[in-house]
Amino acid sequence: MERLIAAIRAKHNPTVAGLDPRLDMLPAELLDKHLSAKGETLQAAADAIVEFNVGILDALADVVPAVKPQLACYEAFGAPGMDAFAQTIAHARQLGYYIIADAKRGDIGSTAEQYAQAFLGTTQVGSTAISPFPCDCVTVNPYLGSDNLLPFYQQCQQHDKDIFVLVKTSNKSSYEVQELMVGDRPVYKVIAELLARTGADSIGASGYSRIGMVVGATYPAHLTALRKALPNSFFLVPGYGSQGGTAADVAGAFDHNGYGAIINSSRAILCAWQKRGGHFADAARAEALDMKKALSAVISMA
Amino acid sequence: MERLIAAIRAKHNPTVAGLDPRLDMLPAELLDKHLSAKGETLQAAADAIVEFNVGILDALADVVPAVKPQLACYEAFGAPGMDAFAQTIAHARQLGYYIIADAKRGDIGSTAEQYAQAFLGTTQVGSTAISPFPCDCVTVNPYLGSDNLLPFYQQCQQHDKDIFVLVKTSNKSSYEVQELMVGDRPVYKVIAELLARTGADSIGASGYSRIGMVVGATYPAHLTALRKALPNSFFLVPGYGSQGGTAADVAGAFDHNGYGAIINSSRAILCAWQKRGGHFADAARAEALDMKKALSAVISMA
Repeated sequence: MERLIAAIRAKHNPTVAGLDPRLDMLPAELLDKHLSAKGETLQAAADAIVEFNVGILDALADVVPAVKPQLACYEAFGAPGMDAFAQTIAHARQLGYYIIADAKRGDIGSTAEQYAQAFLGTTQVGSTAISPFPCDCVTVNPYLGSDNLLPFYQQCQQHDKDIFVLVKTSNKSSYEVQELMVGDRPVYKVIAELLARTGADSIGASGYSRIGMVVGATYPAHLTALRKALPNSFFLVPGYGSQGGTAADVAGAFDHNGYGAIINSSRAILCAWQKRGGHFADAARAEALDMKKALSAVISMA
Repeated sequence: MERLIAAIRAKHNPTVAGLDPRLDMLPAELLDKHLSAKGETLQAAADAIVEFNVGILDALADVVPAVKPQLACYEAFGAPGMDAFAQTIAHARQLGYYIIADAKRGDIGSTAEQYAQAFLGTTQVGSTAISPFPCDCVTVNPYLGSDNLLPFYQQCQQHDKDIFVLVKTSNKSSYEVQELMVGDRPVYKVIAELLARTGADSIGASGYSRIGMVVGATYPAHLTALRKALPNSFFLVPGYGSQGGTAADVAGAFDHNGYGAIINSSRAILCAWQKRGGHFADAARAEALDMKKALSAVISMA
């Protein structure tokens, strides 16, 4: 997590902007321009999304250290959508963002290896090694156990990358599986401890390992308890803003230096223009600056 | 599951062929033709995969009722790889296969909805509804609970589709999470019961609901016990062949009419040419016929 933490320190802002565009989040004139030029096609929609994302990325580049594209929002537009994802991360990379692919992938070992190559490593084509979707980090689902985890972790170690594994997600029904009680501990804590053990050999100078955890802002008590129990695990915290989490709710996710977590906001930033008016990129920037201010009121960063 | 069961009955074969191509599974001359024409690019690799898949699909069309493309094998080749996936399912559809997208997706509600649209439903672009990757079924991860499950289930009900949710996967480390004991029941059984309850309102004439379960061939005792406990849940059974599962191992997955499960084989079929020699498509067909014969020795289909 050293590169992520350096980026947070440089911008003095533990925020990741979720790039989860849907067509109804785009200004009508931007979308219409593409649809009327190319018809109502997946390609036209994908092109509109790229233009929107580029505007957001340019506007936030000096405010926010990291971005998190949600893969579902690109897969929903087929192969053109996945190309829009590739173009989005290429632009984010040029601007120096730390990029988290929110893919939540999980499969058996040999398959997990291919997902890990897609987002963190390289695919071999003849004698050429190609990075299909070059990101810094990817989110991972723990249900298949170490067989899924280790191929991702290997790519992390090999290419200086990181992963965030789902532990306690921000959605309402997350208790159904994650809070089943195994003796006196919920499933999510058993998983968190397994992850902490696995990551122990990649703890960097900052004190954090390459295996981070996803813990929702909507469960502040769990967040605070996990922060204390797992001093070497960096947290990715979704659920801030539109899902109901506040700056006070996420305060417990940080360590005494003000690090240890990055807070995601997606819809509130992308749709800020609908609330604030003005150009969508300016509105997103104003929203991100407000979020930075709100977070800085509850943490003091060393 | 009515359409899947009708397809199994028509071919008298409860087999699904996994379309999990990797470049080292392709005959060298097929791959080289594309790489030398277009260079060592993701596009050239993707084109080679499409040619290979089309050969396999044509060869198996009168033997096997269903195919299961593994998304990781396409994502590993970037946007061109996802286009290869789209071309593969388009050809499979023309040949009348029931198509299971092996995506194992899982996310919070609004995001799960987009994945569900991508594989089972439609994405709205202006006034046009487009199916990005039109499949009959998709595999789903249960870790996020009902918030993830219900958007997929809704698309199933709306568009006559099905899902298979991971319950007990075929990999070695699946016990780490799936067999954690919740009182006297392992996690996977608690999930199986939740799925059975949720699916109860979509039980068709055959007795099976639209919510199937993934249960690995590598755990025959679990398979037999789950079959007895869950009479309305159709099983997708991976792990046959290369992963070690035999026809005897999967016998317990079927009901007394010889239905209730479909057995996946990927590598053994796709790589049959490496063992048997001859054209890859002929070898795949011979392997699939052998598998059909092996299964018919342990089940009697009504």
